[in-house]
Amino acid sequence: MSRIEKVLEGDVRSAARLMRDLDDRLPGAIEELKALHPHTGKGYIIGITGNPGAGKSTLVDALITLYRQARLRVGVVAVDPTSPFSGGAILGDRIRMQRHASDEGVFIRSLATRGQLGGLSRSTFDVASVLDAMGYERIIIETVGVGQDEIEVMKTAYTSVVVTVPGLGDDIQAIKAGILEIADVLVVNKADRDGADRAVRDLFQMLDLRGVVGRQDVEIVKAIATQGTRPESGVADVVRAIDEHRERMGAHEIQRKTERAMAHIGELVRGLLADRANAALRAQGGLEGLAASVVKREQDPYSAAESVLKSL
Amino acid sequence: MSRIEKVLEGDVRSAARLMRDLDDRLPGAIEELKALHPHTGKGYIIGITGNPGAGKSTLVDALITLYRQARLRVGVVAVDPTSPFSGGAILGDRIRMQRHASDEGVFIRSLATRGQLGGLSRSTFDVASVLDAMGYERIIIETVGVGQDEIEVMKTAYTSVVVTVPGLGDDIQAIKAGILEIADVLVVNKADRDGADRAVRDLFQMLDLRGVVGRQDVEIVKAIATQGTRPESGVADVVRAIDEHRERMGAHEIQRKTERAMAHIGELVRGLLADRANAALRAQGGLEGLAASVVKREQDPYSAAESVLKSL
Repeated sequence: MSRIEKVLEGDVRSAARLMRDLDDRLPGAIEELKALHPHTGKGYIIGITGNPGAGKSTLVDALITLYRQARLRVGVVAVDPTSPFSGGAILGDRIRMQRHASDEGVFIRSLATRGQLGGLSRSTFDVASVLDAMGYERIIIETVGVGQDEIEVMKTAYTSVVVTVPGLGDDIQAIKAGILEIADVLVVNKADRDGADRAVRDLFQMLDLRGVVGRQDVEIVKAIATQGTRPESGVADVVRAIDEHRERMGAHEIQRKTERAMAHIGELVRGLLADRANAALRAQGGLEGLAASVVKREQDPYSAAESVLKSL
Repeated sequence: MSRIEKVLEGDVRSAARLMRDLDDRLPGAIEELKALHPHTGKGYIIGITGNPGAGKSTLVDALITLYRQARLRVGVVAVDPTSPFSGGAILGDRIRMQRHASDEGVFIRSLATRGQLGGLSRSTFDVASVLDAMGYERIIIETVGVGQDEIEVMKTAYTSVVVTVPGLGDDIQAIKAGILEIADVLVVNKADRDGADRAVRDLFQMLDLRGVVGRQDVEIVKAIATQGTRPESGVADVVRAIDEHRERMGAHEIQRKTERAMAHIGELVRGLLADRANAALRAQGGLEGLAASVVKREQDPYSAAESVLKSL
C-alpha cells in the first residue's frame, strides 16, 4: 500500500512522516500532497488566535472534548512562531492538551517557525490539507499570539475565533490592530473575572466604530474554558457560534474558499520564487560577491539584481 | 545638459523630478540611477529612528544646524510608514524642520509607504543614492517609529542612531525587540526629565545582558534637542558619537558597505521577482481564476503555483 493510500485510510504514522517530509520540502512529499488534494475540502477548518495568556489552549482542550462527544474526529495544528520568551508556558499549556493524544479520534501536530518569512503559513496549509485528506471532520489551527504571522496563519481557516480576556487594558489596543478584522467569533474567556460584561461592551463598540465588520457578522461569546465541558463553561456556546458562522457563510462558502485558495497559491508562489532566487544567488557565488562589486562601483545594485533574475 | 548631469551638479529641481520618477518606477529613471552609481559612495549616511514622541525631528533639526555650521551639505530623507493615528503630530514636527528648506545646502525629501512590502526600504536606498550623487556630505534618514519597516530602512545607513526618552516604561520593552541590535549610537533625549540617568543605566544593562553588542561598540549620549545648538543641548555630543563610530568602523568599512549592498540587492531581487509574479498572474487572468479551479479540485494549489512560475 502506498503512503498516500495509508494517509487516506487515516494511518497516523504515515501522516506524521509525510508532514515531516513536507516540512523538509522533499519534492516526493509535495507530489504526494498534490495527489491528496482531490480528497480534501470536507473537513471544517477553525482558526483560534488571541493574546498570550487568554486561555486558548484550555479552550481548544474543551472544544476537542465536546467535538469528541459528538463523535467528530478532530485534527489540531498548534502553531508556534517561536519566541525565546514564552517557550515554557506554552509548552505547559500544550502538555495539558496532550491528554487527547491517546484518543485515536484526535491528532495533534505542532508547527514551529523555521525562520523563513511566510513559511509558517505555508506549512499550516500543508498540515491542514493532510488532516483534511485523513478524514478529520474538525481541524483546529491554534496560534500562540496575535502578531502578523498569526494573522497570516488565520487565512488557512474557514472560521476565525479570537480569544481575549477581561481587563487586558492596553492589550485591548493590541487586539485592535488587525486582529478584530479577521474575527468571525470573539470569545471573552475567563468571564468569571471582573469586567467581563464591560469587555463585551467594549468589543461591541470597537466593532461598531470600525464598520469593517457589522455586529451581525461577528458573534461575541463569554466563556470560562477552565470549567471544561460543564454547561457554565460556555464552550458549547463557542461551538454553536462557530456552527452558526458556518451556516451564515453558506452562500458565501465558495467565495471564502476561493479567498483561502488565493492566499495559499500566493504564499506558494512567493515561496517558490524565493527558492529560485536563492538557487540563482548560490549559482552566482552568493550575494556577497555581487555586493562587493557594487561597493567597488564595478556595477550598480539594479544591474546586480537584474543579473540574478536573468540567471533564473 | 542631460538630467543626470544636472543632478550631478546638484540641481534640486532635476533631482526632485528624478526621485518622483523613481517612486513611479519609470524604467528610464532606473537607467539614470544606474548611471549615477559610479558617482556615489562619498556621502555619509546616518539613520535616525526611535519611539514616536522621542524628539527625533527636533534632533534632526539641530543636527542639520550643526552640520551647516561646519559647512557640510545635508540631505534628509524623512520616512513615514504612514499611520492614520499619528499623521498630524508628525506633520507638525516636520514643518519645523522645513525652516531649513530655504537653505541651499539642505535638501529634504519625504517618503511615505505605498503599501508594498519592502518598497519603502527600496525607495530609501534610491533617494539616498541620488542625494549622494548630488554631493551631499551628510545624508540623514529619519523614520517615524521603530517597527520592522523602520529596522529594514535603517539598513540603508552606515551609522544608526536610536533615540529614546526617560520614563518610557513599557515602551522600553518595545525598544528591546530588535531595535537595540541595530543601534550604533543611543540617544537619551529630553535628558532634563526625571530618570535620565536611570534610563542610561537601564540601556547599559540591556546592552550588557544581550551580549549582541558590547558596550565598546555602542555609545549612549544624553541630549536635550529642544535646546538646539547650545552646548547644554548635547547635540554636539551626538555628532561626535556619530563621527567616532565612523572612525571605529574604519577597518570594517568595506564589510559594512558590503552588508548594506547585500541588503539593497536582496531587496531589489525580491521586488523584481514580485513584479514578475504579478505580471504572470495578470497574464493568467489573476489569482482568482486559479483559486476557483483549486476549490473545484480541478488542480491542486502547488500545481497552480508552479503554473504561475512556469509562465514567468
